[in-house]
Amino acid sequence: MDLGNFFNSKNVAIVGVSRNPNKIGHVIFRNLIDGEFSGNIFVVNPNVQSILGYVSYKNISQIKEKIDLVIIAVPAKQAVKVVNECGRKKIKDLIIISAGFKEVGNNKLENSLQKAIKKYKLRVIGPNCLGVLNTKNKLDTLFLPHYRLKRPKQGGISFVCQSGAVGSTILDLASREEDGFAKFISYGNAIDVDESDLIEYLASDYDTKVICLYVEAIKDAKKFMKVMKQTTKRKPVIVVKGGMTEEGNKATLSHTGSLAGSAEVYLAAFKQTGMIYAQSLEDMFNYARILEGSIRPKNNRIQIITNGGGYGIICTDAVVNNNLRMAEPSKETKRNLKKYFPPIVILNNPMDLTGDATTERYRLSIEACLNDKNIDVLLLVVLYQTPLITTDVVDVITEFKNMHKKPIIVVSTGGEFTQILKESLQNNGVPCFTYPENAVKSIKALVDYYL
Amino acid sequence: MDLGNFFNSKNVAIVGVSRNPNKIGHVIFRNLIDGEFSGNIFVVNPNVQSILGYVSYKNISQIKEKIDLVIIAVPAKQAVKVVNECGRKKIKDLIIISAGFKEVGNNKLENSLQKAIKKYKLRVIGPNCLGVLNTKNKLDTLFLPHYRLKRPKQGGISFVCQSGAVGSTILDLASREEDGFAKFISYGNAIDVDESDLIEYLASDYDTKVICLYVEAIKDAKKFMKVMKQTTKRKPVIVVKGGMTEEGNKATLSHTGSLAGSAEVYLAAFKQTGMIYAQSLEDMFNYARILEGSIRPKNNRIQIITNGGGYGIICTDAVVNNNLRMAEPSKETKRNLKKYFPPIVILNNPMDLTGDATTERYRLSIEACLNDKNIDVLLLVVLYQTPLITTDVVDVITEFKNMHKKPIIVVSTGGEFTQILKESLQNNGVPCFTYPENAVKSIKALVDYYL
Repeated sequence: MDLGNFFNSKNVAIVGVSRNPNKIGHVIFRNLIDGEFSGNIFVVNPNVQSILGYVSYKNISQIKEKIDLVIIAVPAKQAVKVVNECGRKKIKDLIIISAGFKEVGNNKLENSLQKAIKKYKLRVIGPNCLGVLNTKNKLDTLFLPHYRLKRPKQGGISFVCQSGAVGSTILDLASREEDGFAKFISYGNAIDVDESDLIEYLASDYDTKVICLYVEAIKDAKKFMKVMKQTTKRKPVIVVKGGMTEEGNKATLSHTGSLAGSAEVYLAAFKQTGMIYAQSLEDMFNYARILEGSIRPKNNRIQIITNGGGYGIICTDAVVNNNLRMAEPSKETKRNLKKYFPPIVILNNPMDLTGDATTERYRLSIEACLNDKNIDVLLLVVLYQTPLITTDVVDVITEFKNMHKKPIIVVSTGGEFTQILKESLQNNGVPCFTYPENAVKSIKALVDYYL
Repeated sequence: MDLGNFFNSKNVAIVGVSRNPNKIGHVIFRNLIDGEFSGNIFVVNPNVQSILGYVSYKNISQIKEKIDLVIIAVPAKQAVKVVNECGRKKIKDLIIISAGFKEVGNNKLENSLQKAIKKYKLRVIGPNCLGVLNTKNKLDTLFLPHYRLKRPKQGGISFVCQSGAVGSTILDLASREEDGFAKFISYGNAIDVDESDLIEYLASDYDTKVICLYVEAIKDAKKFMKVMKQTTKRKPVIVVKGGMTEEGNKATLSHTGSLAGSAEVYLAAFKQTGMIYAQSLEDMFNYARILEGSIRPKNNRIQIITNGGGYGIICTDAVVNNNLRMAEPSKETKRNLKKYFPPIVILNNPMDLTGDATTERYRLSIEACLNDKNIDVLLLVVLYQTPLITTDVVDVITEFKNMHKKPIIVVSTGGEFTQILKESLQNNGVPCFTYPENAVKSIKALVDYYL
């Protein structure tokens, strides 16, 4: 199924744009304008002449230009009529934002929607969804105002999400953490396009480096298995499954109107297809960050470099607990660094540059470890609280990262000042973490995917 | 051991205040001035007449006023001399910031320091430490500049920390998350005052509601067990242990110069004494937040109220996975709420107020659940991205929290706008979390401590 129009349409029509700024259609329209969507927007509302300076069309048929994608934001009862109209006009791709179908027990309405889709061979995302966000051309159907929900910057993570709330809030959080997203899709009831179709599309999408999936119930298990097996060979797919417990499973029924299977079955399926199972949204987010930002490690030997002794120990515990290996720096590395460092610096693993570490100490030790064949992954703890760490440490780390020799992951715990430098590093494509345990757990996900 | 002077001294002397703003003594002096320490500061440096407008004394003996506490920031070799001088002047309480003792293999120097302490019956925190922070009177010996390390606001968490780096960075992080601290102590080599002494003091400290401990090795196991057994009866003590793995244990040797025991022994000791073991710094921080901010729950039946269906399911899974119970709201609660809510609202557990939830829906449902005898703890998912949640939801939740009927915990995931409202709630004493799984894990810690 070619889903390109859902992300790359030039001419987009929104049906159901009220003048009331709180109504869904209006918010979507506003967001496309404010977000500087690179295509053309057409507005349909039979009751008014114009909205925010745009001509308002009586219906889809009135628009002379060729429409690539229609966003439907009318009440559920009117949606079927609009869908039929689109079908007659030979517009194939629709996003139905409207809620009030199967998820509230309105199976009759969902069925007549289904009929229209079949009749005209349409491709539909939704209903009961937020639709899509493409950070590249700013095509954005999320009906949540920008001031409440910031859109993340452009990047390599794509997120397929059965729950609009989960997806949108994670996007918003990502905007604060400087994580970059390619595409987001909230697919709701999945009356036509489902999670497998979307992931199949993202597998071939050049901008997508990592795929995240939040799912409560798989629609077509066979199709899912097939698509996942193929996709995970090309790029990592991280999955969080809602309703893994019996009680959670019951709750999904009323949420999406579809039945979830048992936890064991899902876990086995995820494993068999090579997906990365995340136990929490936080883990998913962390795994996505490292898998997007890091190159492939050669092996699982981790070298810790730190300017805080306690952090070195916590990282060591985490490396062991996650079944990774502590690297043993070569004699040559130690001998070389010994020349430059005061005796207080511990040239081992963890390598403790101590509290008076300078940026230069980081430069020297990172360089030596990148050249050391005993080391596969560099875990840097950089605590910016000590005055001798100058802010150009960000540039030093970025330069090494850009050599693409080994994965470099950074842990920095702290407040405002730390956050500024962390964001700067993140913007340069270096995966950064607040907590050492989360960083190591994510390295484990990285190693497991590639090795 | 009365450790009051370490936190409540009126007249504090700093020995070793250089004019060089990068030197440790200078930074401490500056921080006391900038932080508006409520006591009097005396500066000792024999080489200058004055520093930043303060008279500089040649030595401790020259100061006529009675000194309560001396902060020693001279190089290690000179520290013993200063300690002896304090002893002769009958000043009993000293914080030795200086490093260069046992931790770098200089046992001889540590021994002569030990002798002086015994001879004059002194009470010493350190050496090789950051010392203390009391957020109430702003007594603050952390030699890290304010612009790099923000101090947290006043609150009920106290933190005893063997690693200066771990402690200070967590304080800094807490400043960003609006968590409140009472006292912080980095005790370094613990030549005299150790972790047990400090916790014994905090057990009786009125301002301390929760105690956190990061420890790599216990100095005196018997004393530790005794103190902990007594303390955990009065207030919760959360512990993170560095060096739990063999490799981590080895690393602690070079860090603090003391030997750590086996993981099993530690875990058994923590359990036996009623301490709360946290597996990560993030867990410790989260547990501290909930134990500081929440009242005692009657039982372990959790009611979830949400405006995002997916979050309701994730919370449900987490409740079950953490061996907590899902509450079953009474028929009366459901009947009452049914009158006010549209049929789309699911009056169950999770209670899904749906994406168009208003502040009023939250008000009604929280009130009903607080009055429902089937419910012990309220877990509110409040996603601020939807326009109908007005910002006064913060006041509504705060008002209910101030009735002190049941624990109320809030989950809000998002970016800037969410953060502003979250901080506002946190400032009103409501424990808030970004990730639902962390919130539920913390509720488990709360329930386990009290039940």
